[in-house]
Amino acid sequence: MDERMTEMSRRTVLAAAAIGAAGGGVSLGGGPAGAAAPPASGQAPGVYRYKIGSLEVTVATDGARTFPMPDNFVANAKKDEIDAALRAAYMEPGKMTIVFNPVVVNTGGKLVAIDTGNGAAAFEQSKGAVGQFQTNLKAGGIDPATVDAVLISHFHGDHINGLLTADGKKAFPNAEILVPQAEWAFWSDDGNMSKAAGGPIEGNFKNARRVFGALGNKVTPYAHDKEVVAGITPIATPGHTPGHTSFILASGNAKVLLQSDVTNHPALFVRNPGWHAMFDMDGDQAEKTRRRMFDMASAEKLQVQGFHFPFPAAGYVEKDGTGYRLVPVAWSPTL
Amino acid sequence: MDERMTEMSRRTVLAAAAIGAAGGGVSLGGGPAGAAAPPASGQAPGVYRYKIGSLEVTVATDGARTFPMPDNFVANAKKDEIDAALRAAYMEPGKMTIVFNPVVVNTGGKLVAIDTGNGAAAFEQSKGAVGQFQTNLKAGGIDPATVDAVLISHFHGDHINGLLTADGKKAFPNAEILVPQAEWAFWSDDGNMSKAAGGPIEGNFKNARRVFGALGNKVTPYAHDKEVVAGITPIATPGHTPGHTSFILASGNAKVLLQSDVTNHPALFVRNPGWHAMFDMDGDQAEKTRRRMFDMASAEKLQVQGFHFPFPAAGYVEKDGTGYRLVPVAWSPTL
Repeated sequence: MDERMTEMSRRTVLAAAAIGAAGGGVSLGGGPAGAAAPPASGQAPGVYRYKIGSLEVTVATDGARTFPMPDNFVANAKKDEIDAALRAAYMEPGKMTIVFNPVVVNTGGKLVAIDTGNGAAAFEQSKGAVGQFQTNLKAGGIDPATVDAVLISHFHGDHINGLLTADGKKAFPNAEILVPQAEWAFWSDDGNMSKAAGGPIEGNFKNARRVFGALGNKVTPYAHDKEVVAGITPIATPGHTPGHTSFILASGNAKVLLQSDVTNHPALFVRNPGWHAMFDMDGDQAEKTRRRMFDMASAEKLQVQGFHFPFPAAGYVEKDGTGYRLVPVAWSPTL
Repeated sequence: MDERMTEMSRRTVLAAAAIGAAGGGVSLGGGPAGAAAPPASGQAPGVYRYKIGSLEVTVATDGARTFPMPDNFVANAKKDEIDAALRAAYMEPGKMTIVFNPVVVNTGGKLVAIDTGNGAAAFEQSKGAVGQFQTNLKAGGIDPATVDAVLISHFHGDHINGLLTADGKKAFPNAEILVPQAEWAFWSDDGNMSKAAGGPIEGNFKNARRVFGALGNKVTPYAHDKEVVAGITPIATPGHTPGHTSFILASGNAKVLLQSDVTNHPALFVRNPGWHAMFDMDGDQAEKTRRRMFDMASAEKLQVQGFHFPFPAAGYVEKDGTGYRLVPVAWSPTL
């Protein structure tokens, strides 16, 4: 150390300080590179990985949509209440940003996607805002062709449209497609579709039939409360849709609740579990499901993975006043 | 739609439902791929990007160290208080995880790194737990050779060691190295080093002199309160070290406080601003600085970038009871 100490002598310090003083601060005129690298062309890939016992979960964001807040976005809250909730979350009043976060679970035996995002056609339409799932998966080292099964939570477009490529082919070419039995029964019932004609969910019927039709309706319905793949147990969480499904991911002593759409944006509906989102087909039932799930999650300090939580969309739900609060997990830089 | 509707008839539904019922749930015996892809070899890159007006910030994590909580980690709090704070943040009592998150700012004119992480030698020693900064930068499309300047906040090893490659060369070969004038003056003063002999900061003196010595002491000291690069203004935030520096990043109406080490882990020191971390050379002064910065940030609803916040290490600090709370930013999947 002695030589170095001599090098960095008091004289050096004084000389350096003089430069600073004379220059009135430092002017970065000419580093050797001359000009900075150009700005990056876009966001870094949104991929995050964690273990649940021996299960390996990869969250790959599908992107986000930002739009003016519709008047009826929350069926039973006033505009100023909603704006106050947005401000409390450092979001802009009058606007909404919904994010979409499907996952892939490697069980050791199977590689299983849970939901699929908005799909490649939406990627083009939205200029890359959504439909990023497969790109981000690839950035995380997962080839969609190696996915053995796709588990669908419910039949809304942001969950099923990613089953198809932009030209209507299987986006996960080697995957078996597993759908909730109750959800399949509801949306494929022609009587239900007739009743929905002209109403807000007619489009959901048409879209579900378009997507599954393009797949030749080759799907395998699954029941609730039984492992569908080792470590993954679907549970009924109805209200958002009739057959809406969440999943318990479990291995050893570790457990995570993958809540699907039990709640939409946490800034609104975790904080205010009594608020009913416009997407919930049965608001009262969705609220009961939400309170039941969050009471369980908060009591058990259970990690919750939420499709519409900000990426990486994992956190803890704790009671706070009359509602709940989402505490995001701390990103681990190693697996 | 008609043909598809016929395809997906009630008969199909009943048949499918029967499979589910007969099978007692679904057994995923043989998807075409047979076996799942192998588990991923590690975490996805920790890179995140955001804009402040025309400035582009890239956060690239350097990793994390996890270790048993030293008895003196918080100078003025009891073990059970610390454990309670850890539990409240869903962390394990008796353990600490410190994360390190340097950034790169593209000002349009210059590409500027702020701090450098633990360095390549630490990457090898820690088996990749820390020293990830350059790897993650590259994953985010930034070549360290294009960095025009490195701004150092203070002279602790986790901020300066990344200036060197594993074999002691310049890790940012084309970058001018800018250091706080007050910090340079303190650590290069031989009298200060003599006084520190045998004490807790002797190693910091030796390490700083090792690192800057390897660089031939070719550094440019900068003053506080004057732009050092367009859009980046260093401000004095002493206490953690005598010349400890934070930065205001500003462009147009947008502004971010890059707080450096004004606080270490938010679960302890944002929640309890009166707690003094063992790394703070002057705990009382560090606390005054912390309260001053956080009072400003909470009053202005200013985004705060924190070197030791969980990646991507950006959030809002708001008042909560006698302390503060960090609300992490919502990850945006587009830039």
